[in-house]
Amino acid sequence: MSTVPKRVPDIVIRRISIYSRILSAIVDKGTELVSSDKLGELSGISGTLVRKDLAYFGQFGTRGVGYHVSDLRSTISKILGIDKRWKVAIVGIGNLGAALLSHERFSIRGFDIILGFDADKSKIGQIIHGIEIKDITEVKSVIKEKDVKLGIITVPANSAQVVANMLIDAGIKAILNFAPVNLNIPKDIVLKNIDLSIELDGLSFLLTHKDFQVERYL
Amino acid sequence: MSTVPKRVPDIVIRRISIYSRILSAIVDKGTELVSSDKLGELSGISGTLVRKDLAYFGQFGTRGVGYHVSDLRSTISKILGIDKRWKVAIVGIGNLGAALLSHERFSIRGFDIILGFDADKSKIGQIIHGIEIKDITEVKSVIKEKDVKLGIITVPANSAQVVANMLIDAGIKAILNFAPVNLNIPKDIVLKNIDLSIELDGLSFLLTHKDFQVERYL
Repeated sequence: MSTVPKRVPDIVIRRISIYSRILSAIVDKGTELVSSDKLGELSGISGTLVRKDLAYFGQFGTRGVGYHVSDLRSTISKILGIDKRWKVAIVGIGNLGAALLSHERFSIRGFDIILGFDADKSKIGQIIHGIEIKDITEVKSVIKEKDVKLGIITVPANSAQVVANMLIDAGIKAILNFAPVNLNIPKDIVLKNIDLSIELDGLSFLLTHKDFQVERYL
Repeated sequence: MSTVPKRVPDIVIRRISIYSRILSAIVDKGTELVSSDKLGELSGISGTLVRKDLAYFGQFGTRGVGYHVSDLRSTISKILGIDKRWKVAIVGIGNLGAALLSHERFSIRGFDIILGFDADKSKIGQIIHGIEIKDITEVKSVIKEKDVKLGIITVPANSAQVVANMLIDAGIKAILNFAPVNLNIPKDIVLKNIDLSIELDGLSFLLTHKDFQVERYL
């Protein structure tokens, strides 16, 4: 059985998520056992790091034999909390919001985007990927009614804080924020920010300083 | 003047990028000086960490006075290599690719997406956000001709490696990869992966283990 420690680096969770993706791919191919070295190779990191990451959550493999692919995948799903399905709401149905609404992979990974909201009258009532876009003024009532806990914010920076407040008021417990702004949210709410410009800045930095070694593992 | 050390954690570059965003916002408001504590507060981190991050690249502020906002912004732009403009090509004009093509913020931050490619005949020739979508078979000739060094991959996982090879063959030096696959690329090519499912997995983990503290700074 897995146990969950009190502290773990964020990067470990990210790699665990990648192992999960790779285990799903190899279980689909009918592979029954995998070594930490092989799992590392497929993830682009060392086998040692795979063993170290998994050790945060318990003892899973058998020395000299490896991991049972299907079992390890189930265990990791439980660790990540993706052994059940999550309902997700998106606010801001611009280009990015609409793309995320239609993103097939979310559903494959257990995240069902069931609600989309916008303030633009021309978008309200439109059906995108089977979802009818609702008026942003309905956020609180609809999210409460559907008992959604996960929200994605894809509105412009200057409306993001107001939208975050609305989502939290509606009972949302975790937010994935694409708006390039630092949101003020209560401590019990989980927040992740994705600013795509930051990723491009990182590439620019690396291209500019070729002699430079950046320490990162995935 | 700034000097660039040989090693720096990836997370420092990410935070430097956030400082750059915040400095741009406050310089637009006419603010001339900012303390590290204030810059930290606006970034959602401590002033100590701001000072530590900037110290990787030199000595910029004046004790008791703070940083000159406009100067620090210029210096950080040079560090990040965004004091010049970058040309960018996107391969895979599905929902996400089309959304990125239209993403205004890239241009604001110095990244001009000037090329879009797809294999789908129905998409080739379409004009999205002023960009005419080209046939993927033209990747090499067009990217070489336009001297583009930055590529974004938004194709499905099973074509991503082929596309990466094409881009590298065309002279691309840095890749932002949205396909959920571990790409094999030469050591001199810079690669960043964004898998949006990993971010949702991270939220799921945190919601599932509420007693848990994940160590992360932005």
